[in-house]
Amino acid sequence: MKNRAFYMTELKKMEMREIEMPVPAEGEVIVKLEYVGICGSDVHYLEHGRIGDFVVEGDFILGHECAGKVVQLGSGVKHLQVGDRVALEPGITCGQCEFCKSGKYNLCPDVQFLATPPYHGCLMDYIAFPENMAFKLPDNVSSEEGALVEPLSVGLHAAAQGGIRLGDRVVILGAGCIGLVTLLACKAFGATDIVVVDIIEKRLEAAKRLGATQVINARQEDVLGVVAALTDGAGMDKVIETAGSEHTVKQTPYLVKRGGSIVLVGLAAKDIIDFDFMQIMFKEADIKSVFRYRNLYPAAIGAISGGKIDVKGIVTHEFSFEESQKAFDFVIDNKEEVVKAVIKMG
Amino acid sequence: MKNRAFYMTELKKMEMREIEMPVPAEGEVIVKLEYVGICGSDVHYLEHGRIGDFVVEGDFILGHECAGKVVQLGSGVKHLQVGDRVALEPGITCGQCEFCKSGKYNLCPDVQFLATPPYHGCLMDYIAFPENMAFKLPDNVSSEEGALVEPLSVGLHAAAQGGIRLGDRVVILGAGCIGLVTLLACKAFGATDIVVVDIIEKRLEAAKRLGATQVINARQEDVLGVVAALTDGAGMDKVIETAGSEHTVKQTPYLVKRGGSIVLVGLAAKDIIDFDFMQIMFKEADIKSVFRYRNLYPAAIGAISGGKIDVKGIVTHEFSFEESQKAFDFVIDNKEEVVKAVIKMG
Amino acid sequence: MKNRAFYMTELKKMEMREIEMPVPAEGEVIVKLEYVGICGSDVHYLEHGRIGDFVVEGDFILGHECAGKVVQLGSGVKHLQVGDRVALEPGITCGQCEFCKSGKYNLCPDVQFLATPPYHGCLMDYIAFPENMAFKLPDNVSSEEGALVEPLSVGLHAAAQGGIRLGDRVVILGAGCIGLVTLLACKAFGATDIVVVDIIEKRLEAAKRLGATQVINARQEDVLGVVAALTDGAGMDKVIETAGSEHTVKQTPYLVKRGGSIVLVGLAAKDIIDFDFMQIMFKEADIKSVFRYRNLYPAAIGAISGGKIDVKGIVTHEFSFEESQKAFDFVIDNKEEVVKAVIKMG
Amino acid sequence: MKNRAFYMTELKKMEMREIEMPVPAEGEVIVKLEYVGICGSDVHYLEHGRIGDFVVEGDFILGHECAGKVVQLGSGVKHLQVGDRVALEPGITCGQCEFCKSGKYNLCPDVQFLATPPYHGCLMDYIAFPENMAFKLPDNVSSEEGALVEPLSVGLHAAAQGGIRLGDRVVILGAGCIGLVTLLACKAFGATDIVVVDIIEKRLEAAKRLGATQVINARQEDVLGVVAALTDGAGMDKVIETAGSEHTVKQTPYLVKRGGSIVLVGLAAKDIIDFDFMQIMFKEADIKSVFRYRNLYPAAIGAISGGKIDVKGIVTHEFSFEESQKAFDFVIDNKEEVVKAVIKMG
Repeated sequence: MKNRAFYMTELKKMEMREIEMPVPAEGEVIVKLEYVGICGSDVHYLEHGRIGDFVVEGDFILGHECAGKVVQLGSGVKHLQVGDRVALEPGITCGQCEFCKSGKYNLCPDVQFLATPPYHGCLMDYIAFPENMAFKLPDNVSSEEGALVEPLSVGLHAAAQGGIRLGDRVVILGAGCIGLVTLLACKAFGATDIVVVDIIEKRLEAAKRLGATQVINARQEDVLGVVAALTDGAGMDKVIETAGSEHTVKQTPYLVKRGGSIVLVGLAAKDIIDFDFMQIMFKEADIKSVFRYRNLYPAAIGAISGGKIDVKGIVTHEFSFEESQKAFDFVIDNKEEVVKAVIKMG
Repeated sequence: MKNRAFYMTELKKMEMREIEMPVPAEGEVIVKLEYVGICGSDVHYLEHGRIGDFVVEGDFILGHECAGKVVQLGSGVKHLQVGDRVALEPGITCGQCEFCKSGKYNLCPDVQFLATPPYHGCLMDYIAFPENMAFKLPDNVSSEEGALVEPLSVGLHAAAQGGIRLGDRVVILGAGCIGLVTLLACKAFGATDIVVVDIIEKRLEAAKRLGATQVINARQEDVLGVVAALTDGAGMDKVIETAGSEHTVKQTPYLVKRGGSIVLVGLAAKDIIDFDFMQIMFKEADIKSVFRYRNLYPAAIGAISGGKIDVKGIVTHEFSFEESQKAFDFVIDNKEEVVKAVIKMG
Repeated sequence: MKNRAFYMTELKKMEMREIEMPVPAEGEVIVKLEYVGICGSDVHYLEHGRIGDFVVEGDFILGHECAGKVVQLGSGVKHLQVGDRVALEPGITCGQCEFCKSGKYNLCPDVQFLATPPYHGCLMDYIAFPENMAFKLPDNVSSEEGALVEPLSVGLHAAAQGGIRLGDRVVILGAGCIGLVTLLACKAFGATDIVVVDIIEKRLEAAKRLGATQVINARQEDVLGVVAALTDGAGMDKVIETAGSEHTVKQTPYLVKRGGSIVLVGLAAKDIIDFDFMQIMFKEADIKSVFRYRNLYPAAIGAISGGKIDVKGIVTHEFSFEESQKAFDFVIDNKEEVVKAVIKMG
Repeated sequence: MKNRAFYMTELKKMEMREIEMPVPAEGEVIVKLEYVGICGSDVHYLEHGRIGDFVVEGDFILGHECAGKVVQLGSGVKHLQVGDRVALEPGITCGQCEFCKSGKYNLCPDVQFLATPPYHGCLMDYIAFPENMAFKLPDNVSSEEGALVEPLSVGLHAAAQGGIRLGDRVVILGAGCIGLVTLLACKAFGATDIVVVDIIEKRLEAAKRLGATQVINARQEDVLGVVAALTDGAGMDKVIETAGSEHTVKQTPYLVKRGGSIVLVGLAAKDIIDFDFMQIMFKEADIKSVFRYRNLYPAAIGAISGGKIDVKGIVTHEFSFEESQKAFDFVIDNKEEVVKAVIKMG
């Protein structure tokens, strides 16, 4: 068997190379990848070479949203078998620090996360991965859907952090990929009214198609006014910010209801933002944030399998492995149009 | 306007009488009732004259699942208007005791609950009721559905007490009315696998129709064995007992997963039950219980309106107000067949 | 019996007047007040005539921290007796709105809060008050301590909102009255390390005396540096802001640990503050806020009675009722020195 | 260096033997043990050779409550240094199963727990142990106290499972070692009234000394009656069963308040117990259970160091390592008298 990977070699440049076949360590399986999704962070590394303190040095393999088929078992593998299809949760954590031991493993300082420097990603044919982070897909969940479990988990974590529950009224700021998976998650958690805000009409159409009860084009309507009208001035139970713009972060205190919650998901371009804390305190609102996700792959797969979440609905473009450079180029050039592009492996 | 009520005059005997039109106190509205559901507790009072310490004395009006139309406003009513259709939450609480103030108003010792002696029920044409316990129905929720919000709320409270969340695997023991509304609630809370157990085939068919992913007829199959097989011996995340039989309560410790929860909803005929606490402790499982419900009417109405819960699916029989005696007789004589009978008011 | 009250008649001017004896409504008791504390908000109204949207119009009675003795019972009073000493929780809520019914009565929009316009305060001899907001003091809790339950409850709510638990490391910004009651509360909730920061040495001495494990004078030391050194760079589990200054609010993201919580208690002079949300998101920290308190009087009284909280330790000055104007003048002129002044009634 | 261990060779027989010096694996430290506590489970294995499904086969080393000094570091050890004194948390978990990943590592099915067959205990001079389960003791916490962190953690977990908080009224059934550490824990969590029940006067004296606000000798007083009188018939917020007797488990539903919690800690001799679930349901009480503990060593050590918990107060007897057989004999013969015996290592 031959193994190949796409390397980012310089800004906006990628190159396919043959690489060694991986050898499974104890507890690991070898997975033949079938789908790899392209995430905004992959694109950001390719365009800018860094995200915050994480800097790409040397040639680097992108990709962390993936699923495939188990082709080999390392020693000590207990539950998986050759032929099982699996979604890979891309953060391998230490299992021993205080964060891991208390169930918040997404905060593990020693995490090895695919495609977060210095750890390579998974845009390759074969990868070795720990069994406990490889989640078996049932027959009615495709490998493409398996790759989409990763972004979906961000949405699910946002809904969980916000404590979304049956009957909640939610406004989601931003209808990009993360906004849309958050919409899917809020629906699955039982929110009954979900208003989605964006400035791009195509995205709002996608939101409507995926279940938003109402959409607001912020270019054409006054978001605060519309939400106030919808709620008799009370505000929404939960406000989820996924756009990552300064403007939308600043809107959140005025959109939330007394006693409600704001959830910050979108990484803003600006670190420091003017914020009306007086509103927050007067309403005794709270603010939660989202750093990746934890303990959500099984629920996500169950929800897809049970028909509760149609995650495939977010995919707008598909490319072959060999077209990877083209795929990234396309995404870079068409950010408004692409919700989610996926690469179908060979 | 004329007001009529059906009184229980002795065991199994009812009688229609004219009564005074109610006069709204401050903050009350007068509601013309449109639907009244028949609950197991109504039937139990009619057959036996008591439930535990609550004893029917003198002539007594049954009924506490109801919805209707506002026809008059008392002074100080703020939000409702004449013509609004409303579901009535039947427990009027003091608002001032420690339970009310901490949000557990269902435990208020001074609650005045419809059709719980000494408080009459609502099987009548017109009733005065506090505005804050009368919840407006949107246009796409019928008054029949409004009356069903009451039993549904029991199921929702069971799901809430059990902390049902996306991806949970649940087994519900009993597929009577409460078992089925619990099924609807668990689905709406995101449970992905819901196994329903009963011994009556018709009820299991209803469970399947309403969304159970699997049903078990306990007369034909070994419940513990089937659940063990389904879960590789691990047990279910949540076990909800709605049958109220000694046998099913005793099964719960063997069905629940390590770290899981048991929820007791069905009032058992027997107070004291042999129970394997060693299993509970070894698994560090917890046991929750359900006494009516709290703070769930708005979520229930939102979920029905938003198409998340098809509560009408539990209704098997309908009678007219004038047929009330016949309706109760029928339910008493056909307990296995009737899931939910409702009375359509004049 | 004669009743007297001190009225604020214009900015910084107060005047004692005879007023009518109150008559108890149903469920109310008449309380002869024994102690009334002076709160920062009382002082603010006297100096500025308003706090945010709450504007003093006409003559106005200040005071909302109080305790006294029951001298008369209205009809329907169930638990209290003449001669009982009680602390009064100053917010009378509706008991019927969604906030009240869900246990968050501090967010009731119809609350009638003592000394928050248009509702008069309690700087008077006799007041009528609902029994359910009058909490009986045990023999070993003085009426002075009873009056201090009010500010203590703010500290307890801050600790509760922050989820303070055994073993937590906490930093409290500000050592004024609210900072100190928050310190007392955090100790009682089990925090093991409590660092208190202020710029006034006297306050830091008070903090030390009341149980801070360490104090930092922000005029002399680099707060971020000291906390980083104390925690090996990890930050504190909980950061509680009570100073209400823009500077301290801005510091909180740098002081909190990954996965930790920030609690905002101090009302900042400025509504809108530059804030480093990137830190918050990278750490997945959350931000809670405090609006008054709820359901805490019984716990506060129990903790004082049981010797867990020495609330008397915050009192620095005492005045007689007749000296009320002098008391307020003194507090206005000596803000740095006064932690808590109380008025002993006649 | 020489290493020795005490082996249980048959029921009630122990024997000291020389054993190999341990060699640290990666991430492990070698600890010279200084104190080993004798737990009821150690004694039970020695007397009966088994606890439930855990059967002693072959010679077996007892002991799992321990602390000592680090004398050697394996590769990859990051935080500890030679000379550090540490308390060892005796359950080494997999870090990778769903229980570990969600923070409930005490439910890890693959845990290797000291002195739980087939894993040997720590009644030896030197042991190799993973750094992440070896918690550094501050200078003001002795190694004897360090060994007591283990039983204390059971009490802390009981208090945590019960959600003990400031102001709670608690009754603890049983004043043996676990009852007393639960008492210490409830105090530290803020309970203001703690009633302790036992039938042995000496234990009740210990409870009084350690902070019980009231004790009840169940041989002389009617427990249900006394608790009802203390609470005006309302019952206690939390009921914690540590005695493990059928009788006390059966009492819990009658002792708990409406909406309160029962916590089961004591392993009953009998698996199956008659239990009044009707009481539970009528009160909407919940039942929690305790299986060991999780994530509590740092809080326990902090609480001892900060003077919040005087854990040394539970020690009644001390023996030398060489006297180990005598120590166990004594405990077996004096169960009523011994609260906690510890072995001081050489």
